[in-house]
Amino acid sequence: MKFTKMQGIGNDYVYVNCLEETVENPGEVARKVSDRHFGIGSDGLILIKPSLEADFEMDMYNSDGSQGAMCGNGIRCVAKYVYDYGLTDKDEISIATKSGIKYVKLQVENGKVKTVRVDMGAPILNAGLIPIVSENPQVINEAITAGGREYRMTGVSMGNPHAVVYIDDVKGLDIEKIGPLFETHPCFPDRVNTEFSRVLDDHTVEMRVWERGAGETLACGTGACAVAVASILNGYVVKDQPVTIKLLGGDLEIFWDQQKNTVFMTGPAEVVFDGEIKL
Amino acid sequence: MKFTKMQGIGNDYVYVNCLEETVENPGEVARKVSDRHFGIGSDGLILIKPSLEADFEMDMYNSDGSQGAMCGNGIRCVAKYVYDYGLTDKDEISIATKSGIKYVKLQVENGKVKTVRVDMGAPILNAGLIPIVSENPQVINEAITAGGREYRMTGVSMGNPHAVVYIDDVKGLDIEKIGPLFETHPCFPDRVNTEFSRVLDDHTVEMRVWERGAGETLACGTGACAVAVASILNGYVVKDQPVTIKLLGGDLEIFWDQQKNTVFMTGPAEVVFDGEIKL
Repeated sequence: MKFTKMQGIGNDYVYVNCLEETVENPGEVARKVSDRHFGIGSDGLILIKPSLEADFEMDMYNSDGSQGAMCGNGIRCVAKYVYDYGLTDKDEISIATKSGIKYVKLQVENGKVKTVRVDMGAPILNAGLIPIVSENPQVINEAITAGGREYRMTGVSMGNPHAVVYIDDVKGLDIEKIGPLFETHPCFPDRVNTEFSRVLDDHTVEMRVWERGAGETLACGTGACAVAVASILNGYVVKDQPVTIKLLGGDLEIFWDQQKNTVFMTGPAEVVFDGEIKL
Repeated sequence: MKFTKMQGIGNDYVYVNCLEETVENPGEVARKVSDRHFGIGSDGLILIKPSLEADFEMDMYNSDGSQGAMCGNGIRCVAKYVYDYGLTDKDEISIATKSGIKYVKLQVENGKVKTVRVDMGAPILNAGLIPIVSENPQVINEAITAGGREYRMTGVSMGNPHAVVYIDDVKGLDIEKIGPLFETHPCFPDRVNTEFSRVLDDHTVEMRVWERGAGETLACGTGACAVAVASILNGYVVKDQPVTIKLLGGDLEIFWDQQKNTVFMTGPAEVVFDGEIKL
């Protein structure tokens, strides 16, 4: 099987061009190739397929073999792949995912895609829909106690639930200890992704993320969107302008277009290497 | 740069055939390719080179860019590479390393190397040479206190220092907590690799290893040799016969030939995939 290893701010997948390759039992293949010592090593497997309803389809599998719905870092790499490897010459592309059709816009330099802008859709702020247990219709700067300490959280869903918490020391945080306390807190019936954040200036926020079921990761695209939305709702950053979110794996630029009520995420996508594996 | 990712019981390196490729600044390349999210992902880089004094040279670099001396799992993969990729048709090969020339013997099945036997040299039991601070000339079943608990250790050097400790529950051990207490214990002036071991029967020992500077790893070839030697010295396994050492990444067969006073390690070597990366 020919493949390409790609990454977007450290979130790395094995990409297979299924216009040319056929992958049987993709869940099993995902588990095998994702292993970082015995396999290729990745966060999962993404199959790039033809689509009847969009330009391409992104069919993704997590490292445990389960099917994924959508990944903001992954879709940027799919967009770079189809352009850089000559599958399309368009710079605005529609990609079918299990979360619906997504629209991406490519920024091309010297014939190669440098960054990709993804329309991530509308943020959901209704507490019951996120879901977060609360007496208020929205959860903005609300108290929550975890590990015997009180935090202030803002709740946002980007299709998956996020609790954005502002703290003074992001780098020094013992996230392995505090992350699970949020993830399993009774406030979150579907568990939660928690972004531990600090405002650096009125256009910039740094964050570390604890993802439900995965622990700390280098990057979470929907988490960065949630942090930008929460920071605007709290008045910490300037609204109607892009916000730079600094994650462990790199920076994303998030623009919450409140007129269109959608969130645009812009970030890099990179080819690491091309390979061939016998399955 | 063309490369092949190979692994021996989970200890994985990027291998480059330097009879065809030239790698400049190998330490820097090692750091870059070893990164498991932004690079190929590996425990380091091994360059296979021509040699004047042996059949081939193995020039190894750790994931932090420092030069390594020798790796038992790595040298088996070098042996498989040179045979499987047609660089030699001999089944006994000499390989120059920074720890001297090593001799390996290939077991070939259907034209491909299945397992490799490596002559790992003589174990060093002299306490001062390992080095371990002790009142006795050898450290066999000696008491050591760590984390408020007493353990019994046996000291062996295979070119690097090992403390072999026998415990009742290897799988359930909190190695992240106890490993560093041994590594930095005042008994070990050069720090130490600690093998937490349990005898399964008179030919079989299971172990987990805490490597100095690296933490827990899936496999440590010299550690497996040390466990076999220590288990023979303590009378836990039958001497003059091979001992199976079960590590997290797989099994190694260790034979301490006391007449020749050398330790033979036999284990698998596997190609994971071939690739090409732009540096």
